Amino acid sequence: MSSNPSRTIPTTTHTSRTIIMSYEVPEQQWAQVIEKSGGPPVYKQIPVAKPAADEVLVNIKYSGVCHTDLHAMKGDWPLDRKLPLVGGHEGAGVVVARGELVKDVELGDRVGVKWLNGSCLACSFCEQADEPLCADAQLSGYTVDGTFQQYCIAKAAHVARIPKDVALDAIAPVLCAGITVYKGLKESGIRPGQSVAIVGAGGGLGSLAQQYAKAMGLRIISIDGGEEKRAMCEQLGSDAYVDFLASKDVVADVRAATEDGLGPHAVLLLAVSEKPFQQAAEYVRSRGVVVAIGLPAGAYLRAPVFQSVVRMITIKGSYVGNRRDTAEAIEFFRRGLIKAPFKTVPLSDLAKVYELMEQGKIAGRYVLDLSK
Amino acid sequence: MSSNPSRTIPTTTHTSRTIIMSYEVPEQQWAQVIEKSGGPPVYKQIPVAKPAADEVLVNIKYSGVCHTDLHAMKGDWPLDRKLPLVGGHEGAGVVVARGELVKDVELGDRVGVKWLNGSCLACSFCEQADEPLCADAQLSGYTVDGTFQQYCIAKAAHVARIPKDVALDAIAPVLCAGITVYKGLKESGIRPGQSVAIVGAGGGLGSLAQQYAKAMGLRIISIDGGEEKRAMCEQLGSDAYVDFLASKDVVADVRAATEDGLGPHAVLLLAVSEKPFQQAAEYVRSRGVVVAIGLPAGAYLRAPVFQSVVRMITIKGSYVGNRRDTAEAIEFFRRGLIKAPFKTVPLSDLAKVYELMEQGKIAGRYVLDLSK
Amino acid sequence: MSSNPSRTIPTTTHTSRTIIMSYEVPEQQWAQVIEKSGGPPVYKQIPVAKPAADEVLVNIKYSGVCHTDLHAMKGDWPLDRKLPLVGGHEGAGVVVARGELVKDVELGDRVGVKWLNGSCLACSFCEQADEPLCADAQLSGYTVDGTFQQYCIAKAAHVARIPKDVALDAIAPVLCAGITVYKGLKESGIRPGQSVAIVGAGGGLGSLAQQYAKAMGLRIISIDGGEEKRAMCEQLGSDAYVDFLASKDVVADVRAATEDGLGPHAVLLLAVSEKPFQQAAEYVRSRGVVVAIGLPAGAYLRAPVFQSVVRMITIKGSYVGNRRDTAEAIEFFRRGLIKAPFKTVPLSDLAKVYELMEQGKIAGRYVLDLSK
Amino acid sequence: MSSNPSRTIPTTTHTSRTIIMSYEVPEQQWAQVIEKSGGPPVYKQIPVAKPAADEVLVNIKYSGVCHTDLHAMKGDWPLDRKLPLVGGHEGAGVVVARGELVKDVELGDRVGVKWLNGSCLACSFCEQADEPLCADAQLSGYTVDGTFQQYCIAKAAHVARIPKDVALDAIAPVLCAGITVYKGLKESGIRPGQSVAIVGAGGGLGSLAQQYAKAMGLRIISIDGGEEKRAMCEQLGSDAYVDFLASKDVVADVRAATEDGLGPHAVLLLAVSEKPFQQAAEYVRSRGVVVAIGLPAGAYLRAPVFQSVVRMITIKGSYVGNRRDTAEAIEFFRRGLIKAPFKTVPLSDLAKVYELMEQGKIAGRYVLDLSK
Repeated sequence: MSSNPSRTIPTTTHTSRTIIMSYEVPEQQWAQVIEKSGGPPVYKQIPVAKPAADEVLVNIKYSGVCHTDLHAMKGDWPLDRKLPLVGGHEGAGVVVARGELVKDVELGDRVGVKWLNGSCLACSFCEQADEPLCADAQLSGYTVDGTFQQYCIAKAAHVARIPKDVALDAIAPVLCAGITVYKGLKESGIRPGQSVAIVGAGGGLGSLAQQYAKAMGLRIISIDGGEEKRAMCEQLGSDAYVDFLASKDVVADVRAATEDGLGPHAVLLLAVSEKPFQQAAEYVRSRGVVVAIGLPAGAYLRAPVFQSVVRMITIKGSYVGNRRDTAEAIEFFRRGLIKAPFKTVPLSDLAKVYELMEQGKIAGRYVLDLSK
Repeated sequence: MSSNPSRTIPTTTHTSRTIIMSYEVPEQQWAQVIEKSGGPPVYKQIPVAKPAADEVLVNIKYSGVCHTDLHAMKGDWPLDRKLPLVGGHEGAGVVVARGELVKDVELGDRVGVKWLNGSCLACSFCEQADEPLCADAQLSGYTVDGTFQQYCIAKAAHVARIPKDVALDAIAPVLCAGITVYKGLKESGIRPGQSVAIVGAGGGLGSLAQQYAKAMGLRIISIDGGEEKRAMCEQLGSDAYVDFLASKDVVADVRAATEDGLGPHAVLLLAVSEKPFQQAAEYVRSRGVVVAIGLPAGAYLRAPVFQSVVRMITIKGSYVGNRRDTAEAIEFFRRGLIKAPFKTVPLSDLAKVYELMEQGKIAGRYVLDLSK
Repeated sequence: MSSNPSRTIPTTTHTSRTIIMSYEVPEQQWAQVIEKSGGPPVYKQIPVAKPAADEVLVNIKYSGVCHTDLHAMKGDWPLDRKLPLVGGHEGAGVVVARGELVKDVELGDRVGVKWLNGSCLACSFCEQADEPLCADAQLSGYTVDGTFQQYCIAKAAHVARIPKDVALDAIAPVLCAGITVYKGLKESGIRPGQSVAIVGAGGGLGSLAQQYAKAMGLRIISIDGGEEKRAMCEQLGSDAYVDFLASKDVVADVRAATEDGLGPHAVLLLAVSEKPFQQAAEYVRSRGVVVAIGLPAGAYLRAPVFQSVVRMITIKGSYVGNRRDTAEAIEFFRRGLIKAPFKTVPLSDLAKVYELMEQGKIAGRYVLDLSK
Repeated sequence: MSSNPSRTIPTTTHTSRTIIMSYEVPEQQWAQVIEKSGGPPVYKQIPVAKPAADEVLVNIKYSGVCHTDLHAMKGDWPLDRKLPLVGGHEGAGVVVARGELVKDVELGDRVGVKWLNGSCLACSFCEQADEPLCADAQLSGYTVDGTFQQYCIAKAAHVARIPKDVALDAIAPVLCAGITVYKGLKESGIRPGQSVAIVGAGGGLGSLAQQYAKAMGLRIISIDGGEEKRAMCEQLGSDAYVDFLASKDVVADVRAATEDGLGPHAVLLLAVSEKPFQQAAEYVRSRGVVVAIGLPAGAYLRAPVFQSVVRMITIKGSYVGNRRDTAEAIEFFRRGLIKAPFKTVPLSDLAKVYELMEQGKIAGRYVLDLSK
């Protein structure tokens, strides 16, 4: 779109640039650094970065640890990442420095640094509030250094605002998992009073999804395996539970769990295996929506053309939330409608958390305390 | 939902019922009857039926012949049909009798009998204007006798209204093919000025889809094979043509055909093979919608979970239009924006039309003249 | 749309017509009849009507009494009504007879007869599920006889389905007031977590609106006058209460009651005076929606053009719900989320109820017991 | 939202800041400056400003003159403006300098500076792509200096992209008037094939509105006064014209101009008097939408509550477009579907243009040539 460059030989003018900083920001900090693909994370001291004109520097107090961080360390996804890399994308802390253009974030503001660290705010996706689809999106703990360090950079326009009455450790896991399931529920387009089936309801995402669904006035059919999961789902307020381990016909059982037997209006797929992706199109109500959120490696969405057409089924992918989704998801939490159980360990213990994660031994979320 | 039957032992009262008829309706008529699965259709005389209280009897003047009629004869679909069966679901004619409850259709009105012959108008789908999803829908030429007879029954609330300035032979093929592609375009949710890729643009459905898309202010990328199809698509006003036979990289070429290289906002799948279903998810724009309309036997929708999620792709099936879609699709035709080339033959020639259809020798639509 | 009538000289054929009836339906019944405009209602015996082919006869057990019934008696509205007239449009009872075309309603089914007694189901509005806008809509207790009689006729496709676990007296007031406020909330387009201001929150409609709003995950700012109303609103779960009698600046106070001070996302106008209609446009959030539901006689919606344009405000009218809204509103009730306080009196006491209504002495709803 | 300030005593760090500039940018430039409320504009030399880190400097080649510029000079609106002020908000030119954060705009890029010069891109409105509602929006020629100068500053994320094959003088008027009417048509929510009444169709906005409506596949009922306007509307492709000067019953005539006599699906109000605002609610179709765009001083939207409720009418205000609307409106122009007649005069002639404007003597748009 640029015209003939000969008309506009660029020259450069230098003027002074200003960063507003809190006095106590140190030069060095502790961080967990992935130095080579596959890891392990190395706990060490590194320099504190300085914010550009539209950025803030956040003193991270707590950071959740997500499966995605493990994928990032191992290089599991078809998406390039920075190396060496500081992982982490569920950080909650306090702003301690800001660039000169930043006007609506003050030093001392409590903010969250999430997966979407920044985006161009000018492309056709950003223009329509789909900044997660921006081709120049920066991803915390993936394409830019993330929240497993004491001082983290983020675009000011992208930090999540954390209200005063919200604890920084408790909100950390909501900044990724909570926003993601809330977005998925919004994307499904279902309305209060309608029913949603949540596949993988007993997991970390599932537990949050159930709480958001309930707060949104939805009826919930939880799908997972085993009696322990059943108990948990019932406690969270599920209207029905289908045990895929015990059921002889999951499709029939899910349909039977709806008032009129026609199936749920929407399905939220949080599972990490492929089969449920293909089954959901069978039990969802005609005109219903299947939302894929989980990312099983190498899996495919799959549904028979004939049934999908004559029943007018919709299958769609939902990624992370945009900034508005983020604010809304946090507001539900602030109102006390969402609980995300977590366990706090020092930043230095990250490698152990990854170990437990790989062994499938984590119930709820681990949160790192960055002050230790 | 019924309470204890002992409280309400039913009795029956008989009163007189009235049918308003035109004087000239005969007792017998010519029809093409499928007497056993697989066919062939038998050209013979059968009795004229009488409309129930909420039905009309239509003197069919012309009826289009659709691939679906061939599928119905052969029993190709996983959906039960009536036998013996009078096929046909693109009939245009004149009302010659009506039941006593019918108030808004007059004798002499010009109407169309389409795939959806009737529906309950009371279930949860009918209540939300999704009568094609009604479990009790009657399908012309499939679950009830259709338009390959001179006098055909249809629910009064379901007949399509044909304006005076529209020719009955020309509108016949629009009653199925036209409505279906128009519905698909509506279901895609794209807005005037946005771009749609039409897969199978050079076929019968495709040619109609291009014209509707153009009348709706959309930009069109036609996808089909060969130079003859290219010429046809360009003549119909396509903004770009991608030849899947000649292209070395269909995905790249489709994307390149959009203004910003990000791919079309929607894809309409009219093809009858499986591959394009899986390719569309790759070239559609992020946040875009792939609409499946064609019904390749045994085919599957298929898309990688990872890309579908992070690009927030939607894949949906679109079936036939509802009554509102029908009226709208006909109105575009009335305004002269849609041309559907056709060839007229007598009703007695139906078997020959099927033969040509099986040989893939039909360009445009065959329309039967029922007066002969 | 009819062609030359000379082509289709109508003749008439008579066949037998069937009504399925319960054995115990009497010939005569008790009813309250408005014999002349202005009333009073006359309590007397009248014949029981017979259902047409697409109708049911409902043995009304209970009927709510609504302000609209009083308006109908007095002839307050610019809309013609039947005379003599049996009023009433919140009737709950049991089906005792049905016409021959009725398939999905059984004798003994529990159903509700509501304001919309029937509609053509074939016009452009009915086709898009806006049957309340049908030009041929029949209105219970207004253009056709209503529910202040023991046996009432209604179109089968329009009766509300009442689940077994719902009491017929308790549901009666929901059939008009409940559906209307639920529809208004749907029309506002707001999403769970967003805030709605309810003007007239302490009245009968307002109390229902608060409960529906809460069940839909909305945040509620109740607006009404006095401490008694405040107590009631707080008990129903309002997030804030603005007392328009005590407030020095209603606009400022309503805005201040929202999280960010920008005003509620939607406003529901249930009041019966004009001023709140004009005030709402000032405190609603930019891009917000003001929904008018109440019908103050001769009142006008009014808002300054400049502010409405630069703040992109929407003002819309919401009438009664369609059949889908009805089923959804009843389902919220069935789930125990809605309570509508009522007092039961015999049918013969209708005139006394009107007296109390005119004196403004009714809190909650009066329900007539038709068995007495 | 900021925490205790004692924890974060701010300090300031200075680093060097960079502006990339084209070599030929002068220190001084010609401009039209409003030095006191009421004007007149003073043609004089003033310094060229330097862009901040997120801004660009645009060498304006052409600028349209809009009624709003006259309102701004005279201080007609209830909205504060800058003084002294360089007016103008329809500027087209070439980028000659940019701040260091600007990445997606290059020196030499052809861009438009429009009413919305910039916004915070971080508030709840900007987050949902409603940047025209941003409380910190900067308005060109109103709260910041505009395009009646040779070098104008704008936020990089807000400049409109002008394709190579579009003439800078011709596009200038589209940047305000075109985008505004396009936005109004989008806000109406109507679909291709439906009908829109355009009130004030024969004026500058109206002429553009008709062309956009046509390009969007809408049917157009033009409303204006006189035979000259009729000729112009018919030439632009209106489907019907209602002359409010000649009509004995505008409401009846507008309804009669629609296919089924039920009235247009939407009404676009571009007029500058109050009466049409109140009339539109009468002839719009039930469930229809009346969009107010024009800003008659001190006018009120007004509609009877009863009719608005039982007909479910929506009345909404539509302000200027957002960035996506802008790109889309320009794309329609680029495709050759929009013509906006204009007359070019030198920048120094602005006062004369205002004079003609006040005398109501302008047909089409005046465009200033900034090179003269």
